[in-house]
Amino acid sequence: MIPILFAMPGNEAFTLHLDRAISCEVGQMEMRRFPDGESYVRLLSAVHGRDVIFVCTLDRPDEKMMPLYLAARTARELGARRVGLVAPYLAYMRQDARFKEGEGITSAHFAAFVSDFCDWLATVDPHLHRHHKLNEIYSIPTKVVHAAPAIAEWIAERIENPVIVGPDAESEQWASQVAKAVRCPYVVLEKKRSGDREVEVSAPDTTAWKGGTPVLVDDITSTGQTMIAAVRRIRDAGLPKPVCISVHPVFAGSAYEDLRAAGVEKIVSCNTIAHPTNEIDIAEALAVAAVELMHILPIDG
Amino acid sequence: MIPILFAMPGNEAFTLHLDRAISCEVGQMEMRRFPDGESYVRLLSAVHGRDVIFVCTLDRPDEKMMPLYLAARTARELGARRVGLVAPYLAYMRQDARFKEGEGITSAHFAAFVSDFCDWLATVDPHLHRHHKLNEIYSIPTKVVHAAPAIAEWIAERIENPVIVGPDAESEQWASQVAKAVRCPYVVLEKKRSGDREVEVSAPDTTAWKGGTPVLVDDITSTGQTMIAAVRRIRDAGLPKPVCISVHPVFAGSAYEDLRAAGVEKIVSCNTIAHPTNEIDIAEALAVAAVELMHILPIDG
Repeated sequence: MIPILFAMPGNEAFTLHLDRAISCEVGQMEMRRFPDGESYVRLLSAVHGRDVIFVCTLDRPDEKMMPLYLAARTARELGARRVGLVAPYLAYMRQDARFKEGEGITSAHFAAFVSDFCDWLATVDPHLHRHHKLNEIYSIPTKVVHAAPAIAEWIAERIENPVIVGPDAESEQWASQVAKAVRCPYVVLEKKRSGDREVEVSAPDTTAWKGGTPVLVDDITSTGQTMIAAVRRIRDAGLPKPVCISVHPVFAGSAYEDLRAAGVEKIVSCNTIAHPTNEIDIAEALAVAAVELMHILPIDG
Repeated sequence: MIPILFAMPGNEAFTLHLDRAISCEVGQMEMRRFPDGESYVRLLSAVHGRDVIFVCTLDRPDEKMMPLYLAARTARELGARRVGLVAPYLAYMRQDARFKEGEGITSAHFAAFVSDFCDWLATVDPHLHRHHKLNEIYSIPTKVVHAAPAIAEWIAERIENPVIVGPDAESEQWASQVAKAVRCPYVVLEKKRSGDREVEVSAPDTTAWKGGTPVLVDDITSTGQTMIAAVRRIRDAGLPKPVCISVHPVFAGSAYEDLRAAGVEKIVSCNTIAHPTNEIDIAEALAVAAVELMHILPIDG
C-alpha cells in the first residue's frame, strides 16, 4: 500500500507540494481543541498496516508538540506500520550545550521525545553547530535535505553578478556552498551577540566586489537582528540594497517588518515555514528523503 | 537531603502551600520563551542527588507540556535522584475510549508521555470513568488525593441544612461521598449531552428536601454547561439559589461569568487550578501523598 500523508494544522499547502513529488495519498484528519484546551485527534483515513507520514514544521514548537504526539500515537494505536515525521523546520537545535550552570542540553531532550514517538525524521538544514550530525541526538533514522542547491538555482536564474554574504561565522557553510554552486564570490561577516535580540556585525570587505548585488544568505531568520545588522553594514559600506535569503523564515514578532525597513532589495525564503516570502520550494527534495527513509527502514511483518 | 520543589509558571502560590505542609526547599528556576517560541529552562538551585518535585497543574495542558518535559529532563541531566510531578489537576483523562473510528485513547498516550519523564505522580480526583485506576494507564507510582473530605468540611462549617446535588450520573461518586461526610441528603440529576457545549439535565426530585440549601458538587467545571443546566433546573423547581462547588475550576472561556449569571448563591472551588473562587485548600493532602510516594519508591545508590 502507498504511504499516507497527514498535514498537521498549517501544513496543508506544503503537504500538497510533497504529494505532487511522491506517489502517496493525502489523508483526512479531524483536529481541534476541546473548550478546556486539550487536543482532539481523529484520523478519518485508514492507516492500518500502512506507512504514515505526519507533516509538521516545528517553528513555535511548544503548542504543536502535544497534537503531533497524540496524532502519531493514535496512528500507531490504529495499526500504522511505521510513523514518520517530515518537519521542514526542526526546533530546539540551538541549546546544544550547557552554556550556564543549571541549563540542560534541550536539543538532546527534544530529540529523545521525537525519537520516542516517530520511526524516522526528514528535515531541511537543521541548525547543526556543536552537534555535527542529527544522529548524535536522534536515535531514529534521519535525513537532512540541504537547501543550498535550490537557493543557488534561484540566485543564478534571477540575480545578475551576485556576491553571497554570510552574516556571521556560523553562516559560512551556507554562504560557501551557495557561492560555489552559483560560481560567484562570497564574504562572511563577523557577529557579536550580547543577548537574545542585540547583535552587531563587522563591516564587509568591499574590495571583494565591484558593482555586484549583495545576496545575504542565512539559515534561520528569527528576530532578524543578525540579518538586519548585516544589511546596515552593507548599506553603510556604500553597497547596493541586498537581497536577503532565509532558509527558515521563522520571523518572530515584528522581525519581517523590521528587516524590510532596514533597506533591502527583496526578502526571499524557502517554504520550510509558510510565509509570504516563500519563493524557493524544497518539497521535492524532502519527498525524496522521505522515500529513502521508508526504503531504508526494516519493515515488520 | 530534603526534597526540592520547583513551581512551574503559575504554580508559585500553590507551591508555597505545599512547602508549608512538608519539609522541603522551594527551588529557584529561570523559565522563559525565546523570541522564536522555544522554551528556556535553567534550574538555579542544586538538584544533584536530590528528590526533585515539579509542581504543575495541567489545565490548558498543550502549552505547558514542553516546558515541563524540558525542566524534568534537565533535572535528571543535572543528577536529580528522582523527579516527581505534583499535578493538582490532571489533563487528558476524558478521552478514555475510542468513541468513534479513527480516534485514539489519548488518556493512555498522555499517561505514557508523563510516565516517560517522571518517576511518580500525585494528583487530586482525576476524572476516572472508564479507567478505574490511574495505574491502568500510568506505568509510574501514582497517588490520588480525594477532595471530598475537604469539601465536606467546608460545607459542614458554612451551610445550614445542605442538600448535596450531583449534576449528572458521573458525579454520583462525589455527591454521595460528600453527603455521607456531611451527614446530609443528596440527589443526582441526569444529563443528556449533545455536543462539547450543549447539555440538558433532568428536574430534581424536590421531595428530598424542605427548606434545605442546594449545594451542587462536580469534579471538573470546564464550559460550565452541566453546572448551569443543573442550576436552571433547581431554580425552575422553585428551590433556593444553589451553592456551586467545583473540585477543578477549569472555567473555559466565559464559563465562570455564565455560571454566575445563571443564578447562584456562591461559587467555590478547590485550589487545584488558581482561580478567584478557590476557598478549599487541598495542598496538605497532596503534600502527604508526595511524601508517601517518595518513601514507597526504591532509591538508587
